[in-house]
Amino acid sequence: MILGKEVLYNFTKNIFMHCGMLEQDAIKATNVLITADLRGIDSHGVARLSGYIRLWEKQRANFTPQWKVIHETPSTATIDADQGLGLTVAQEAMDIAIEKAKNVGTGWVAIQNSNHFGIAAYHAMKALPHDMIGISMTNASPLVAPTRSIERMLGTNPICVTFPAKNFQPIVVDMATSAAANGKLEIAQRIGKSIQTGWVQTKSGEDSNDPNELKSGGSLLPLGGHKGYGLSAVVDILSAVLSGANYGPWVPPFVAFLDPLSNLPGNGIGHFVGAMRVDAFRKKEDYYTHIDQWIARFKQAIPVNPSEPVLIPGEPEYFEYQQRIVNGIPLTEAVYFDLKKLSEHFGIPLD
Amino acid sequence: MILGKEVLYNFTKNIFMHCGMLEQDAIKATNVLITADLRGIDSHGVARLSGYIRLWEKQRANFTPQWKVIHETPSTATIDADQGLGLTVAQEAMDIAIEKAKNVGTGWVAIQNSNHFGIAAYHAMKALPHDMIGISMTNASPLVAPTRSIERMLGTNPICVTFPAKNFQPIVVDMATSAAANGKLEIAQRIGKSIQTGWVQTKSGEDSNDPNELKSGGSLLPLGGHKGYGLSAVVDILSAVLSGANYGPWVPPFVAFLDPLSNLPGNGIGHFVGAMRVDAFRKKEDYYTHIDQWIARFKQAIPVNPSEPVLIPGEPEYFEYQQRIVNGIPLTEAVYFDLKKLSEHFGIPLD
Repeated sequence: MILGKEVLYNFTKNIFMHCGMLEQDAIKATNVLITADLRGIDSHGVARLSGYIRLWEKQRANFTPQWKVIHETPSTATIDADQGLGLTVAQEAMDIAIEKAKNVGTGWVAIQNSNHFGIAAYHAMKALPHDMIGISMTNASPLVAPTRSIERMLGTNPICVTFPAKNFQPIVVDMATSAAANGKLEIAQRIGKSIQTGWVQTKSGEDSNDPNELKSGGSLLPLGGHKGYGLSAVVDILSAVLSGANYGPWVPPFVAFLDPLSNLPGNGIGHFVGAMRVDAFRKKEDYYTHIDQWIARFKQAIPVNPSEPVLIPGEPEYFEYQQRIVNGIPLTEAVYFDLKKLSEHFGIPLD
Repeated sequence: MILGKEVLYNFTKNIFMHCGMLEQDAIKATNVLITADLRGIDSHGVARLSGYIRLWEKQRANFTPQWKVIHETPSTATIDADQGLGLTVAQEAMDIAIEKAKNVGTGWVAIQNSNHFGIAAYHAMKALPHDMIGISMTNASPLVAPTRSIERMLGTNPICVTFPAKNFQPIVVDMATSAAANGKLEIAQRIGKSIQTGWVQTKSGEDSNDPNELKSGGSLLPLGGHKGYGLSAVVDILSAVLSGANYGPWVPPFVAFLDPLSNLPGNGIGHFVGAMRVDAFRKKEDYYTHIDQWIARFKQAIPVNPSEPVLIPGEPEYFEYQQRIVNGIPLTEAVYFDLKKLSEHFGIPLD
C-alpha cells in the first residue's frame, strides 16, 4: 500500500488538530513524522501516530503544552516541556539553541518533562540553513542492558550530528546507540527471520538470534559492547540528568499500555540539542571548501565492490527521500490498518 | 619489569626538557603519559615517548610552540598549535574552554597544526574540578576503512566525555571509534593470538582474524559497522574541518618513518575539546544528587554473573590506577628496551 506524501500529511495534521493541538504545532509534529517516512525511517513515521494519540488519551502527553525556559546562560538553556510531545518542543529548543549560537557561537538546550521526539535528524537538521552544525539526542524507554547485565536500563538513545555542505547534501550521522534499533527487530519478526548475533540477549544473558527475545524478558545489546554502553550513558545523562528528566530504568515507556514506574526521580523523558556556528571556528567559506573536499574524497574511497561505492552518512536516507517524494510512501498492512482505525475512530478521512 | 611512577615521571620529564621543552610544558606532557600508564592504557603512556622524540628529531613536532588563538567568539575558539604536541596544547585549549564556560555556560575549542595528544580522557577530565562536563576528541593517522571500502581513510578517532560526580568517581567514557584500538592488535601480535572477527579486514575487504593484517595492506574496521564510520566522521570533521587541520587520508602519520602526503589540505592533526558548566543547565546540587543516583542505580543493575557486577564507564581504569599508583607501572620488555635506548642516547638515567 503506497500513499502520497500529501495524503499522509493532511491526515496526520488533522488527527493532531482533532485532538486539540494548535495548527502551528500540528504542522510541526506532522513534519517530523512525514520526514521520517520520506527518509525511509518507517519505524518513526506515521507508524507511531497512534502511539502518540494513545499517550494523549491516557493524559500522559499534553497537546497544548505551556513549555518554558527554566534555567539559562548565554550559551545554554533548560526547558520544561510541560508534558508536550518532543516532536514539537525539541523544535522550539533547537530555535533557542540557534538563537544562542547566533549570539555567542554555540547554543545548547536540555529538555525535561517531554515525550518521544521522533527522528533525531529532523531536529539537528534545523541548524543547517543557518550555516550551523546541529546536534540532537534523546533518551528512551529502557530496552538495552549495560555490558555484564541482563537488566533493561537504557533506551536505544540515538545521537544525531549534522554538518552543512555547499555542493553536496549535508552530512547526517543519525544512529541508535544500541547494536540494532528496535525497528529492525520488528521487521525480522514480521517476515519470520532470525537476527544476527550481538543484537539481543536472552533473559539470562545468552546470545540469541530470536527477534522475539524482548517478549521473553530478553534485552537489546549496546552497539559494539561496552563502547555502546558508554555512548548510551552519555546520551542518557546529557538528556536527563542535566535537564531534570527521568533516566535509566525510570524513563517512562512510549507505549501507553505500560505504566511509568512510581517514585520517579525526574519529569518525563529528556532530550539534548545543540547548534554551533561554523564561522565561530573559521571563515565560513573555508569551512565549506573543506567539508566539500571531505565529502568528495570519501565518495572516492576505494570500494570493496566497485558497484557499491562508499556512502556519506545521510546519503541512504536522502536517496530514499528523493524516491519517495515522487513515488509516495509505502506502508505495511499493519500500519495502514492502524491508520484506518484512527480514521474511523475520529471520523477523519484517510485519502 | 615494573617501575615506580616517580622513576618514569622524572625520566620522561627529563627527556622532554633535554629536547628543549620548557619545564612547565615538560610537566604537562609527562602528566598525560604517566596518567595513561597509571590508568592501564599502556599503548598511550611512556610506550609512546620515543615516538614523540622521533617526530621532534624529524622537525615535525615543535617542543617550544608559540600556539595562538586565531579565531574566537564568546563560547568558541580555534587554536593554531604551531606544530606543538597535543599533549600540551590540548591542555591550553581545555583551559580556554573552561574559562569560556565560566563566562557563558559552555566553551568549545578546535585545534589545528597539532600532534598526538595522548589519552583523550586526560584533557576531558580537566573540566571535572570546575563542576563541568568535559569533552575531548582527536583525529589520527588513517588506519580505518569506511563501510564498503578497503581504503584507510580514518584514524581510530577517539571520543571522551566525562561527568563529575559527588560521592563516586567521575564517569569517564573514553573510546576509540574503531572496533578495536590498535593497541589491542599489538597485544595479540605479541602473544601470537588470533583476534575476533570484525576488528580488521584484508586488503581486499574480507574478514580476518590475523592481528598482523595491517602490515599486509589490511585495515581496521569501524565500531559496529556504519555507525562507527559515522561517529569517526564526526570526530574527524569537528577536529579538522572546523579547525583547519588535515582530515581523512591526509592526517600525517604518528610514526616518524612515514612521511606525510604532499598537497595537504590543512595543518597538522586536529583536536576538538569542550567544557559545559553543570549549573548552566540546573542547580549544581540537583545535578550532583542525580548523577550520584544514576551511578548508584547502574552499579545495582542485575549482572549476568553475580561475581562480575556492572561497571560504570571509567571504573576499570580507576581500579587500575589505584593499584598501579601503589605497586608501580608494569612495562613490557619492548617498552623497557625502548626507554633504555632513549636513556643511553640522551645520557639521562632511567632509575
